[in-house]
Amino acid sequence: MSVRENALSIFALGGINEIGKNMYVVEYGDDLVIIDCGGKFADESLLGVDLIIPDFTYLQENRNKIRGLVVTHGHEDHIGGIPYFLKKLNVPVYATRFTLGLIELKLKEHKILRESTLVQIDSNSELDFGEIKVNFFKTSHSIPDCLGIVFNTPEGKVVHTGDFKFDLTPVNDQHSDIHKMAEIGNEGVVMLISESTNAERPGFTPSEQEVGGHIEKAFMGAKGKIIISTFASNVNRVQQIVHAALKTNRRIALLGRSMVNVVAVARERGYLDIPDWMLIDTKEINNIPNERIVILCTGSQGEPLAALSRLSRNSYRDVKVYPGDTVIFAASPIPGNEKDVSKIVDNLFQLGAHVIYGSSTITGMHVSGHGYQEDLKLMLTLMKPKYFIPIHGEYRMLHLHRQLAEAVGVEKGNTFIIKNGDVVDIKNSEARQTRNIPSGDVYVDGLGDDEIGDIVLRDRKQLSEEGMLVIVITINKSDGKLVSPPDSISRGFVYAKNAEELINNVNQVVVSTIGNFKEANVHGMRKAVRKEVGKYLDQQTKKKPMILPIIIAI
Amino acid sequence: MSVRENALSIFALGGINEIGKNMYVVEYGDDLVIIDCGGKFADESLLGVDLIIPDFTYLQENRNKIRGLVVTHGHEDHIGGIPYFLKKLNVPVYATRFTLGLIELKLKEHKILRESTLVQIDSNSELDFGEIKVNFFKTSHSIPDCLGIVFNTPEGKVVHTGDFKFDLTPVNDQHSDIHKMAEIGNEGVVMLISESTNAERPGFTPSEQEVGGHIEKAFMGAKGKIIISTFASNVNRVQQIVHAALKTNRRIALLGRSMVNVVAVARERGYLDIPDWMLIDTKEINNIPNERIVILCTGSQGEPLAALSRLSRNSYRDVKVYPGDTVIFAASPIPGNEKDVSKIVDNLFQLGAHVIYGSSTITGMHVSGHGYQEDLKLMLTLMKPKYFIPIHGEYRMLHLHRQLAEAVGVEKGNTFIIKNGDVVDIKNSEARQTRNIPSGDVYVDGLGDDEIGDIVLRDRKQLSEEGMLVIVITINKSDGKLVSPPDSISRGFVYAKNAEELINNVNQVVVSTIGNFKEANVHGMRKAVRKEVGKYLDQQTKKKPMILPIIIAI
Repeated sequence: MSVRENALSIFALGGINEIGKNMYVVEYGDDLVIIDCGGKFADESLLGVDLIIPDFTYLQENRNKIRGLVVTHGHEDHIGGIPYFLKKLNVPVYATRFTLGLIELKLKEHKILRESTLVQIDSNSELDFGEIKVNFFKTSHSIPDCLGIVFNTPEGKVVHTGDFKFDLTPVNDQHSDIHKMAEIGNEGVVMLISESTNAERPGFTPSEQEVGGHIEKAFMGAKGKIIISTFASNVNRVQQIVHAALKTNRRIALLGRSMVNVVAVARERGYLDIPDWMLIDTKEINNIPNERIVILCTGSQGEPLAALSRLSRNSYRDVKVYPGDTVIFAASPIPGNEKDVSKIVDNLFQLGAHVIYGSSTITGMHVSGHGYQEDLKLMLTLMKPKYFIPIHGEYRMLHLHRQLAEAVGVEKGNTFIIKNGDVVDIKNSEARQTRNIPSGDVYVDGLGDDEIGDIVLRDRKQLSEEGMLVIVITINKSDGKLVSPPDSISRGFVYAKNAEELINNVNQVVVSTIGNFKEANVHGMRKAVRKEVGKYLDQQTKKKPMILPIIIAI
Repeated sequence: MSVRENALSIFALGGINEIGKNMYVVEYGDDLVIIDCGGKFADESLLGVDLIIPDFTYLQENRNKIRGLVVTHGHEDHIGGIPYFLKKLNVPVYATRFTLGLIELKLKEHKILRESTLVQIDSNSELDFGEIKVNFFKTSHSIPDCLGIVFNTPEGKVVHTGDFKFDLTPVNDQHSDIHKMAEIGNEGVVMLISESTNAERPGFTPSEQEVGGHIEKAFMGAKGKIIISTFASNVNRVQQIVHAALKTNRRIALLGRSMVNVVAVARERGYLDIPDWMLIDTKEINNIPNERIVILCTGSQGEPLAALSRLSRNSYRDVKVYPGDTVIFAASPIPGNEKDVSKIVDNLFQLGAHVIYGSSTITGMHVSGHGYQEDLKLMLTLMKPKYFIPIHGEYRMLHLHRQLAEAVGVEKGNTFIIKNGDVVDIKNSEARQTRNIPSGDVYVDGLGDDEIGDIVLRDRKQLSEEGMLVIVITINKSDGKLVSPPDSISRGFVYAKNAEELINNVNQVVVSTIGNFKEANVHGMRKAVRKEVGKYLDQQTKKKPMILPIIIAI
């Protein structure tokens, strides 16, 4: 049989050269295990695209091998693609109690919760997937209940770290299993797959507890209402906010759909302790003195539709920002979001609020959930892998992570900087990267399950930058002569008032172009009109609108 | 006559609640002086817009009063609008020798240099504009030859700072006239108009010389070619790069149009000292050992068409990046540009280069040209103004600048936080803000002088996010019955392959909508088709493409 039969194969369907849509695969013989299935938010250049998910082609073609989808933790870039994936391939999903809670919210929204198979695991679980046996270790991150994964295969142990930092004083007992990691490393690891998000940052990641101290200090000094915004999924930070509210005798109102949903999941499942009496409805806010209130809300990244942005525009009926209120951004802006955040800060200052915002090195209101260089080196040191694949990062992060690996003893040449779709095969303990499988971005639009194609996006780009011109041409089907003067309609191209002369000239170009034909050659006319009008507009306006000649032969 | 006759009026046509398109006006009776005329780069949400300039309506309506346009310095956000302005109002332009050089480049490009009136001034010039007498003081900034402006009016002195920092050890003798400023302050200033860019940052701005030290150190350690990118207009930083190249025995090649142009202007006019023998053509690069070469290029902000981006994609024939080359970003990314810069860093690492990038607090490769909080307080202290208008900043910066002013003695209530178009009138030494004049954003597209309207932009936005559907309907003009089945063409909306059924259904909706009409009511049919098809598509796809029914009655 072929070489593949007894090779161990490892690859990414997403997560390499990007932050987002993480999806990794470990495959041996007829057994295939998937790690995570994330989404990625589209930037503005992808017009009208709401979410990007991995290309599932390879998995659809190998559906009989799939043993399960194992999820490391509940962040969007690790679970956001799951509903779309399960609609195509209904495989069992393995995740911890909190992570499952967040996945269930998604599946409910997509109305596929009932038919999905969800299996609750914890760090002591052992899964038997044929030739691949799986066990786990706990990691610390900016969301509860995170796992690293060990794949025990005939070629040895493959370790996938998930997202992690080493937080020695975590909140809510979210400790890393450092001893277990050390043991795994001692047993021998053939391949480490480790995240690279903060490979550019020197030192160790600060502990989540440091944020708690700063929150408490700000709460102590605040006079009016406190409005504090953070990631809903950062339950441990929410817990620290609750503690600060307790100490300063304030009650808490939740604002924003994901804050309400995630807090409910976290409380139900025992990851967050908020006494019932502390929680108030937003309608009660005006019955309670300002200095007794904390509003805990979404929107720390400046998302225009989230609660904090709406508050800054005073668009809630029951909740207003008054002069003297304190607004705290308990999260740093992710690169790309600074402008949206700044706009909100401007609005809040205009409402007279005291705003705590900006670099976390000054405010202390944020620490990262991803390990810095020393955390990454500690993981590499604990695992002592023979081979290494840095994942979960853009190229420069992977590049720098390789340097870190070599600094702590991974042999030069044993680190594979791969692309999505590149396969690393391990056979007889030797790893090689020589082949790849299909991978790519799939665009998802709106609530629908529709995928958007490249052609649609290319058209949108042209339409958005240059606009369009529809030219209606009615010809006689017997001789191809014009029946009536052509009519041109432009959108997104030129001012109607300035355009009159231009459009008249376009119609002249059409008349003379059509006049060259001796018969009703609709296809040829369409091509000729597009070419001649395009040339004319380029000369006159330096613009290239989409030209749509519509030829009706009667 | 009216109150205005002997009031001193001050307002902004751009530059407030934004960074960009700076334009300010000082007016007394029949004399009006303009300060700067900047452009602002459009962000991605303004589809296909290349530049934003101020609305000149008020100036066009008061053209007879205009005595001149005085320019503080040569940055884009202070001179970028000048060609568009002069095409509408050909008024004399007053600027220093270096600033004029940059303005001339622009006027040449727009082919209006010959008919423009350019007057060279320096910090000792005195201009007599009727009731307004103007003199100047030198400031330090990130471009040579900057001016602050004093307007001596019947109501007293109005001081406009231009952009500034206090650099006590500047490069190339670009000192601030601190003694002159002190003197002006002692004579009494009724109104200070001061820039606010760095009002959020505590402390003093570091000196430009600090960057020189870091550049020199990096040059000393570099093995292969050095590629260094900075703002072309930061001539003093370029001078420091030249010094470092001299010390390390390297010759310099210039790459990028604006680098070539600005260096030429700066050398011709005596602001930059590069011995002729040091400059090499890019074609000679391959004849000289790598370790003897510096490539000085544009593109430090990640601009996709600039030299550094092209180098990172290896798209020059004569200039390549080889493993072992050093690439230095000698400029911090402006907020919003981080992603483009990161992409270039990724590519450069892939080419094997050593890259010095990231926060200037770590690399030391950038200092700001705008004064921090202590610089701003020093200016306020020197000028001791009665009234104060913070300009050149977004709202939070203006807000914090007011706090700084109050901290150094400006009376509470005497700071005016205005909007573009708000007029501050001073009469009998009392300032009030009660009225405003027309102001706004004017969009400029491509090379043309065309302005783009809001409707065009709104159409582009819909086209870009939802796409469009053209429906061709041919009816009998006597009874309004369909002559042939309707035909629908979509662009940017749905996949052709997925769309067949949807489009068939749309055509059905059209058939039944048209069937309701008893006569050829083209206007009514168009409206009805748009409504019914819109409703159907919203139900089926949750999308709202632009629908263009084209009805041909034959």
